[in-house]
Amino acid sequence: DVCVCVSEHQHLRYNPLRDTWVLVSAHRMKRPWSGQVEKEEELHVPRHDPNNPLCPGNTRANGEVNPDYESTFVFENDFPALQPDGPDPGSDQHPLFQSKAARGLCKVMCFHPWSDVTLSVMAIPDIIKVIDKWAELMVDLGSTYPWVQIFENKGAMMGCSNPHPHCQVWASSFLPNEASLSDRCQREYLKNHGEPLLLQYAKMEAESQERVVVQNSDWLAVVPYWATWPFQTLLLPRRHVLRLTDLTSQEKEGLASIMKQLLTKYDNLFHMSFPYSMGWHGAPTGPHLQEDQSHWQLHAHYYPPLLRSGTIRKFMVGYEMLAQEQRDLTPEQAAQRLRDLPEEHYKTQAM
Amino acid sequence: DVCVCVSEHQHLRYNPLRDTWVLVSAHRMKRPWSGQVEKEEELHVPRHDPNNPLCPGNTRANGEVNPDYESTFVFENDFPALQPDGPDPGSDQHPLFQSKAARGLCKVMCFHPWSDVTLSVMAIPDIIKVIDKWAELMVDLGSTYPWVQIFENKGAMMGCSNPHPHCQVWASSFLPNEASLSDRCQREYLKNHGEPLLLQYAKMEAESQERVVVQNSDWLAVVPYWATWPFQTLLLPRRHVLRLTDLTSQEKEGLASIMKQLLTKYDNLFHMSFPYSMGWHGAPTGPHLQEDQSHWQLHAHYYPPLLRSGTIRKFMVGYEMLAQEQRDLTPEQAAQRLRDLPEEHYKTQAM
Ligand SMILES: O=P(O)(O)O[C@H]1O[C@H](CO)[C@@H](O)[C@H](O)[C@H]1O
Ligand SMILES: O=P(O)(O)O[C@H]1O[C@H](CO)[C@@H](O)[C@H](O)[C@H]1O
Repeated sequence: DVCVCVSEHQHLRYNPLRDTWVLVSAHRMKRPWSGQVEKEEELHVPRHDPNNPLCPGNTRANGEVNPDYESTFVFENDFPALQPDGPDPGSDQHPLFQSKAARGLCKVMCFHPWSDVTLSVMAIPDIIKVIDKWAELMVDLGSTYPWVQIFENKGAMMGCSNPHPHCQVWASSFLPNEASLSDRCQREYLKNHGEPLLLQYAKMEAESQERVVVQNSDWLAVVPYWATWPFQTLLLPRRHVLRLTDLTSQEKEGLASIMKQLLTKYDNLFHMSFPYSMGWHGAPTGPHLQEDQSHWQLHAHYYPPLLRSGTIRKFMVGYEMLAQEQRDLTPEQAAQRLRDLPEEHYKTQAM
Repeated sequence: DVCVCVSEHQHLRYNPLRDTWVLVSAHRMKRPWSGQVEKEEELHVPRHDPNNPLCPGNTRANGEVNPDYESTFVFENDFPALQPDGPDPGSDQHPLFQSKAARGLCKVMCFHPWSDVTLSVMAIPDIIKVIDKWAELMVDLGSTYPWVQIFENKGAMMGCSNPHPHCQVWASSFLPNEASLSDRCQREYLKNHGEPLLLQYAKMEAESQERVVVQNSDWLAVVPYWATWPFQTLLLPRRHVLRLTDLTSQEKEGLASIMKQLLTKYDNLFHMSFPYSMGWHGAPTGPHLQEDQSHWQLHAHYYPPLLRSGTIRKFMVGYEMLAQEQRDLTPEQAAQRLRDLPEEHYKTQAM
């Protein structure tokens, strides 16, 4: 494992899922910060806001009225980045001016009728309903679209414009950059090493325990060896699973429980509703459902922006945008901090 | 060129410098915004602040006293992400747990003794001094290091922690991800098409004018066909130039002038000191100085975060992090808006 000398000095680590490197400079945590601080989280979100278009019974921008939903609720995004039709620019193009048709669908999915809850404080049966709905959307949209991206932007810091607990589902007629990069890396790994990349990785992390944050019999949440965001985590099944649609009911229960544990740790880190972007990656769908996709392993990425406190974030700016991502504490240090936090949510801990 | 139907519908565009695609969804500009708004820019920055470690004559964190500098001033970053020494983790590694040594130097460069100026309002001779110093640093650090990244994070929104006009220079013992990706793309382009990618691109953009923001006899600033940030620009020499160190004095004057023009347009867009991260990419240095690098063309990238106003930014979050970058107006629309702005800085425009 990583020796003390390495963890105290800057070094590069390889991300085998993206074929890139990250610069780890642990000693940078010592520098003072006089840059931008984020606003403190809004403390009070009302359970039902008559003006919030995501709440049950309210009217949305397009005039539609939400039903009085009691668990999850899915509707079409009123300002979709992807629409089912779109012209084909044709193929007679200069190599420097290439465009392609992009078609798809954008949906919004509310997790719960109440605005003042998050997945971390929802009851396990309610989280299972979210997972069931994810799997259902994967079946529906994945029957035709090659990629269905489920993602959650949580918190104003992550561009989320509505405090109501929700995620988005964007289905596309193409494999997005990150999907095709991950596909290529996992495909080559299986070819060269005879085992799916993330299946082997999960086994080795489970054995070492050094970067494990929480675990149960079916799942593992680790700060990956190649994490770029300070408290980034990777959620992995222990069994070889290609897609969300392949999970057994037991695995869905285990997933609900490990998500709640992980998100509770996150909230406990700075005693706040922890912002992040998260999303699922699994084997491509649509026409790819008929192909051999055994190099794939289902997983979720959590990318939280905070670094030192609820108001000081990691900026991925100049050097990161133009050269290479850089992190200020080691993944092992981050895993240790998360692991050491209480299992109970700070809002419900005894005073 | 791009027909109206395409510019009104979502489509994908290819970035030949990164071998990736961007999703362009022009119609998304119509959506309402109720998410995070940024703080208004601090209006008053004092010309000299006795507590600012970047001002002339002041004492820095490590106890060193800055000279009474009169143009540019370079010093070692007191909290460097890269240091000249560092252990070598060795090569006996599992493919999923690979690390490498990272060595380098981090410098900070002040542009001017006054805290209340930016490149957009500095006089041309003073901007030339900045360019000369950049070239000098490229010679010094580039004599041994394979990559020297000059970059500027401007504005609190871009993680800049000090309002004093400055940039950073990080030299590394390795080619960072973005550098090696760009190297590969430019190398393959020359091999397949017989002309350096960005030389051909500059010619075609100069001819079409559709995405040109400002230009002079030696330089061109365009919103690239594949821009991801709303008002992203690419600064290109018209002649084949490998590195900043190869610029003639006339080209340096032309560069100072086009930078001032471009940054004035930027400030005029929302009547504020426009935030961005920018940086230079040129042929690798150190051991690569002896190699044929004719596939390279020197260029600067400007990545500004703002979308609709001085307080509403584009968030590159969930879908962008997990799937693919997405933009809400076409590069042609962005170029047109910038082009149509006055040439004179709003601060000095007649009332
Ligand atoms: O070095 P600075 O200005 O303190 O820090 C800023 O720029 C660095 C290089 O892009 C980033 O790694 C930091 O996250 C950012 O806050
Ligand atoms: O769709 P929303 O939540 O309005 O928008 C948010 O998520 C999108 C997908 O990641 C991003 O493109 C937007 O920049 C962000 O503000």
